[in-house]
Amino acid sequence: MIDIELSQSVNSLVSQFKLIRQQSLNLCSGLSEADMQAQSMSDASPLKWHLAHTTWAFESFLLKPLDKSYKQYNADYDYLFNSYYNGIGKQYPRPMRGLLTRPSFDEIINYRQYVDNAMCVWLDNLTTDQLTANKNQIEYLIQLCFNHEQQHQELILTDLKHLFSFNPQSPSLSTKHPFKDQLTTLSNNEAAMEQSVSFSAGLYFIGQNEAPSQAGIGFCFDNETPAHQYYLESFKLDTQLVSNADYVAFIEDGGYSKSEFWLSEAWQLIQSENRQMPLYWRKIQHQFYEHSLLGLRKLPLAHPVSHISYFEANAYANWKQKRLPTEQEWEVAAITQPEQFRGLYNQLWQWTSSSYSAYPGFKPTQGVVSEYNGKFMLNQYVLRGGSIATPQHHIRATYRNFFAPSAQWQYSGIRLAESI
Amino acid sequence: MIDIELSQSVNSLVSQFKLIRQQSLNLCSGLSEADMQAQSMSDASPLKWHLAHTTWAFESFLLKPLDKSYKQYNADYDYLFNSYYNGIGKQYPRPMRGLLTRPSFDEIINYRQYVDNAMCVWLDNLTTDQLTANKNQIEYLIQLCFNHEQQHQELILTDLKHLFSFNPQSPSLSTKHPFKDQLTTLSNNEAAMEQSVSFSAGLYFIGQNEAPSQAGIGFCFDNETPAHQYYLESFKLDTQLVSNADYVAFIEDGGYSKSEFWLSEAWQLIQSENRQMPLYWRKIQHQFYEHSLLGLRKLPLAHPVSHISYFEANAYANWKQKRLPTEQEWEVAAITQPEQFRGLYNQLWQWTSSSYSAYPGFKPTQGVVSEYNGKFMLNQYVLRGGSIATPQHHIRATYRNFFAPSAQWQYSGIRLAESI
Amino acid sequence: MIDIELSQSVNSLVSQFKLIRQQSLNLCSGLSEADMQAQSMSDASPLKWHLAHTTWAFESFLLKPLDKSYKQYNADYDYLFNSYYNGIGKQYPRPMRGLLTRPSFDEIINYRQYVDNAMCVWLDNLTTDQLTANKNQIEYLIQLCFNHEQQHQELILTDLKHLFSFNPQSPSLSTKHPFKDQLTTLSNNEAAMEQSVSFSAGLYFIGQNEAPSQAGIGFCFDNETPAHQYYLESFKLDTQLVSNADYVAFIEDGGYSKSEFWLSEAWQLIQSENRQMPLYWRKIQHQFYEHSLLGLRKLPLAHPVSHISYFEANAYANWKQKRLPTEQEWEVAAITQPEQFRGLYNQLWQWTSSSYSAYPGFKPTQGVVSEYNGKFMLNQYVLRGGSIATPQHHIRATYRNFFAPSAQWQYSGIRLAESI
Amino acid sequence: MIDIELSQSVNSLVSQFKLIRQQSLNLCSGLSEADMQAQSMSDASPLKWHLAHTTWAFESFLLKPLDKSYKQYNADYDYLFNSYYNGIGKQYPRPMRGLLTRPSFDEIINYRQYVDNAMCVWLDNLTTDQLTANKNQIEYLIQLCFNHEQQHQELILTDLKHLFSFNPQSPSLSTKHPFKDQLTTLSNNEAAMEQSVSFSAGLYFIGQNEAPSQAGIGFCFDNETPAHQYYLESFKLDTQLVSNADYVAFIEDGGYSKSEFWLSEAWQLIQSENRQMPLYWRKIQHQFYEHSLLGLRKLPLAHPVSHISYFEANAYANWKQKRLPTEQEWEVAAITQPEQFRGLYNQLWQWTSSSYSAYPGFKPTQGVVSEYNGKFMLNQYVLRGGSIATPQHHIRATYRNFFAPSAQWQYSGIRLAESI
Repeated sequence: MIDIELSQSVNSLVSQFKLIRQQSLNLCSGLSEADMQAQSMSDASPLKWHLAHTTWAFESFLLKPLDKSYKQYNADYDYLFNSYYNGIGKQYPRPMRGLLTRPSFDEIINYRQYVDNAMCVWLDNLTTDQLTANKNQIEYLIQLCFNHEQQHQELILTDLKHLFSFNPQSPSLSTKHPFKDQLTTLSNNEAAMEQSVSFSAGLYFIGQNEAPSQAGIGFCFDNETPAHQYYLESFKLDTQLVSNADYVAFIEDGGYSKSEFWLSEAWQLIQSENRQMPLYWRKIQHQFYEHSLLGLRKLPLAHPVSHISYFEANAYANWKQKRLPTEQEWEVAAITQPEQFRGLYNQLWQWTSSSYSAYPGFKPTQGVVSEYNGKFMLNQYVLRGGSIATPQHHIRATYRNFFAPSAQWQYSGIRLAESI
Repeated sequence: MIDIELSQSVNSLVSQFKLIRQQSLNLCSGLSEADMQAQSMSDASPLKWHLAHTTWAFESFLLKPLDKSYKQYNADYDYLFNSYYNGIGKQYPRPMRGLLTRPSFDEIINYRQYVDNAMCVWLDNLTTDQLTANKNQIEYLIQLCFNHEQQHQELILTDLKHLFSFNPQSPSLSTKHPFKDQLTTLSNNEAAMEQSVSFSAGLYFIGQNEAPSQAGIGFCFDNETPAHQYYLESFKLDTQLVSNADYVAFIEDGGYSKSEFWLSEAWQLIQSENRQMPLYWRKIQHQFYEHSLLGLRKLPLAHPVSHISYFEANAYANWKQKRLPTEQEWEVAAITQPEQFRGLYNQLWQWTSSSYSAYPGFKPTQGVVSEYNGKFMLNQYVLRGGSIATPQHHIRATYRNFFAPSAQWQYSGIRLAESI
Repeated sequence: MIDIELSQSVNSLVSQFKLIRQQSLNLCSGLSEADMQAQSMSDASPLKWHLAHTTWAFESFLLKPLDKSYKQYNADYDYLFNSYYNGIGKQYPRPMRGLLTRPSFDEIINYRQYVDNAMCVWLDNLTTDQLTANKNQIEYLIQLCFNHEQQHQELILTDLKHLFSFNPQSPSLSTKHPFKDQLTTLSNNEAAMEQSVSFSAGLYFIGQNEAPSQAGIGFCFDNETPAHQYYLESFKLDTQLVSNADYVAFIEDGGYSKSEFWLSEAWQLIQSENRQMPLYWRKIQHQFYEHSLLGLRKLPLAHPVSHISYFEANAYANWKQKRLPTEQEWEVAAITQPEQFRGLYNQLWQWTSSSYSAYPGFKPTQGVVSEYNGKFMLNQYVLRGGSIATPQHHIRATYRNFFAPSAQWQYSGIRLAESI
Repeated sequence: MIDIELSQSVNSLVSQFKLIRQQSLNLCSGLSEADMQAQSMSDASPLKWHLAHTTWAFESFLLKPLDKSYKQYNADYDYLFNSYYNGIGKQYPRPMRGLLTRPSFDEIINYRQYVDNAMCVWLDNLTTDQLTANKNQIEYLIQLCFNHEQQHQELILTDLKHLFSFNPQSPSLSTKHPFKDQLTTLSNNEAAMEQSVSFSAGLYFIGQNEAPSQAGIGFCFDNETPAHQYYLESFKLDTQLVSNADYVAFIEDGGYSKSEFWLSEAWQLIQSENRQMPLYWRKIQHQFYEHSLLGLRKLPLAHPVSHISYFEANAYANWKQKRLPTEQEWEVAAITQPEQFRGLYNQLWQWTSSSYSAYPGFKPTQGVVSEYNGKFMLNQYVLRGGSIATPQHHIRATYRNFFAPSAQWQYSGIRLAESI
């Protein structure tokens, strides 16, 4: 849990804004310009780009449309730092972001300061009437941008970890990095803990209602709405995450060489790329090691297994003769009995068997941010919970994270379910 | 509807078997060995290979395990004609099936006859006790192989149509082809017909129970089981399929150049490949034509639009400010009010918004055929209904067809839904 | 040497034409339509396509421009059967030739007969004046088309062999195939033979002069012209080709795992594709076999090593501390001392170290056939001699064959040289 | 001509060494760590990597084998900074060099200083006897490493220019960059100048003899040896390079849309990538601009056309009904009449029609540096001369530069020849 003290102590949007913005910079502590420039794959972005893009979001979603006195910092940035909003315009090709050595890091820091100043002035002058006009639309957009920056904070960490994984010298976070310890130490599984919790069949409410109008009280993304009824059969959910020791047992039982555990597409992938273990594991002289933000280290067997794809999570579940939970099962458990479960939010995202799709009656947020979530509802699978790299105040039981089933570079793990 | 008189007039498994097997050959009427040899893409197979593979299925799923007197025709065929059953062994690489010019077509006909003879003898000698042993497991496997052959009959037609689409001379089915007219003539939409039918919210039963034991009465695949409750919000379903004329309106409104209608992945695809219209449409001197099994012809505007990807179906629905139905909505409509709808089964498969996944409590059929359906439950979308190329007795309201969302070479169309 | 009795006994162009045309069909003896339809890679073509394309060449280079009474058989064929003549028009994409199941094989035979008839009438009626007009331009074009058909005769065999190599059942030519024995039996190396022949330094004439005007006497391609002086240092050329036994020694000395023998690009290729032996070799239980037109058979150790890429030939030469000859060295040897060398023309093409480029003063043949050779003078290496699959009357000492350095599917071997 | 006063004023190897090493750093003036980190394509390297790799060369080719007191700076660097010397060991994958954000830039500067110190001590203590032992082998290796660093100095500039070309903001060299003006200003063509110079046919000496033993007097690479006779037909060579104005005329005559000017492989490339002009040209509102190290600017019409591929040079020559010179023609002209020609060495490298291959009797330098040149003698074409980005003392008439025929990112231009 990378986090700042936020909601309790902070009683103004300006203060919240400053804390959130500072946090992004804190996460880059001790990194060089080079570290923040390189892009290790198309799915990842340079850290410098994350810092610019989140700034661009405040500028594009708030200042330009809503603050009439605002003058855009640099119109070129609409092309360079737009991620995927076709409604705003064309985008510099994603796989080439690492080639944008200019604007320089210093220039991007200037850009951040320029936008931060404008945001603080604007937020300070916002009247409650303005803020809550149109069913709290402005307040919602502000919270959306806050949450957007927090999402990129987690990506800053996952993209950096991915980049460092290609370096044979196994770089480590600086000893002065504010989250060094949190980011590298998961909680050991507890042997004595109850194994699973049962839930009875029935109709449950899933998701949240009318998110925008309640943004001040409890923000959620449009993809979590509307609340709707969902019928669940009875099921059990494991109280703990699958550990590295558990996953080693799967490997040692031939897990990666037995097709029967794998989805067809997964099997093709692991065969063609000769996969034998999770992305960040290394086998050196018969011993497992893992790439971490502390560099290479012996695999901590009692930690939850991390950086697991949906493919691997599903194969492990099959081997274990259990299954992944649906996102609805996960949500019901997290809402009704959160205290029974370890690591719901602060260890690893948990793959569900649910393809990421629209809830019944889903309507994207109006305007340019309609592209935020809806257009990705295809061939992605939902992860629930949160991770050690997730800002603590960013998450909740209804939160729907989603990635392609082959994705491994996120802090993703496995919690198993069973039908009963 | 390519079909044979089946269930009523045929009172023995042997007769059913013969009719089904003959049908596969009938579909190849008037084709040359070359037509049956070529493979137009990895997703398609040579027609000759379909004829061999379905034969191999009878041999591998029935004769070899269940008929002790059976001698395998040629052990090499386990490698050549196994599609994807890792439980049986390795497979000749799918994209290269078109290179297998040997065994020759004549040899494959011999193979069919050899297996057909063995099957007829074995079926004739099967006692009712044997047939219904182990909860009708043998009867179920027989029906599975029958249905498997029927599935490949539709693929024979879609793969042939795809192959012919690469030929600038626009080949046509032989005038003597038994299904020439059916395969090329869809039903015109009716202007006067009621537009949609409403369904109220509530819990519905979806799917079928205990398929294997009831195979004799009504076969279904394992992926249709078990029956389970599903809560639906109220919705409307259109009574007719979207027509070519409707789809032309979408194109002429700039449908293929407006990102807002498309899923992110779909938009990237149509941009990178400069797609402007459905797969088989051609625009010649400002006029739309379509590639058909009768060759190139003017687009019949009143026909349902066909060979549409999920991407296109979804974009069209967005443009129309409606949506695709879920597979559960489609099934409830098809079971409760089939008479209200045109073209439920005999025009085009209908894309649903449902990602292909396991029903709650799903258990794959035991044995080698466990690979039949389950391992494909990823990144595919469910189509419901049936098409003019589907054997009529092969389909039912609970049938779940599935293809990748980019797939266009199937007889797939669009039926729209709305939340109410 | 696949061949027909040609130049001596045949005193008319018509007779020559008929013999050459028949030979292409003879080479397809015992093959099915399927065998003639499949295309195993982009560099190869379906046999059926070769039969059509060579016909199209007679039609396009002779009948259409020179025979005013000729009516084109089918204008579509200009698109379907044009190989690479942009001067004539666009071409059906080469990698997709295997998808052209129509026109049917019978239709292509009709096409051949139609063109053959027209050619025979036209050739019969050609006056000597017409034939030798414009410095024998017409006679030259006729001979060019004859030679073109002969080049495709060799490709028919190499493409068929390549296709069959993907078939795990190891197909074989029909026992009635007229060249079955010739095509599968190379000459054993002779232990007692002199090892090399020396040549002294000096200026030599290379190539041929004014080919078109002397076509009747001795045809050559434009790329063999003009004759020019070339200075050679003294050198030795081996009298025999490298044998399979020699090449086995290279492999067993770790040839494929030692980078020092390989060109950089070659090393990358064999590393990335894990190459361990020549294309058509198989290692089965510690024994080498080779794919041949007789099916799989034990590697004949005394045969010359065949189906070798330039990469492999060069690596072998480095290992042997010799080198490949330049094309000029080869030509001087072949012209001045042909009797000293085994297998100059009738075993395997011999890689030279010469990049395929224009001779000093080279001018392409005028007209559409200017594209025949010149535009390929890039990144290809010259092979000299001829092979068991080359029509005997097609070849000569100045003949320049050329392929990409990675190409392995031709009947290519190794003859080594040394500087002295 | 980026250069330092070298040979005349510098009377010690140490001084030469220091000047050359400093020059590499000078070329990076005003660049950020990010600019030096990014890698724009596999063929290019990060500038930081160039700085490390050239250092590694001094360490690996001189200090480690020859200076017994030397302690390696960091053994990991043998993997990270080895370019392609398999004789030394495996190499970090070239396309991923941009991911090596560590070692940091500062660390690489430390590495340079460490090696520079060791080199200076070692060079200072070298006796003449040591230096000239084994036929001057040590002196030769020292000069090789000097020349190697100079080659990378040109690559630093071409790789930087390539990287900046992807930046829509058109970055420019710092105003303080020591070579800013030289690098961006070519010489205008002169209208009044003689157009071509003729050379008579005959035997000429090409290349240099026994390079290593004469290294102190005049260094050359092994690929320039041995000197040998070469017969040339009479020819003319243009005195000036083709200008941007000339090349615009080619474009405006439809040069990029007429297949007849292009080699087959070139035509496929420009068709498939829709090429319309040279790599760094941009057409903005009917006006040509070029990307330069000063940013985007109007195309200077009187400058020589630059960043031209062999494909383009060859097509232009065909359009002009001339041809590219062979490398032997170029060398003869440069040696016998250098004063007749503008821009032989200090404008742009000049493509020749010669495929890069071994001279008769070529023997690679012994030892690890045998991989320096020889293994790249495939599918590359020779460029002669030198460019504004080439260190002036690095070049000579016999110098053979070489790149793939599609390469455009070098300072390459066109000088035409004709047969007479």
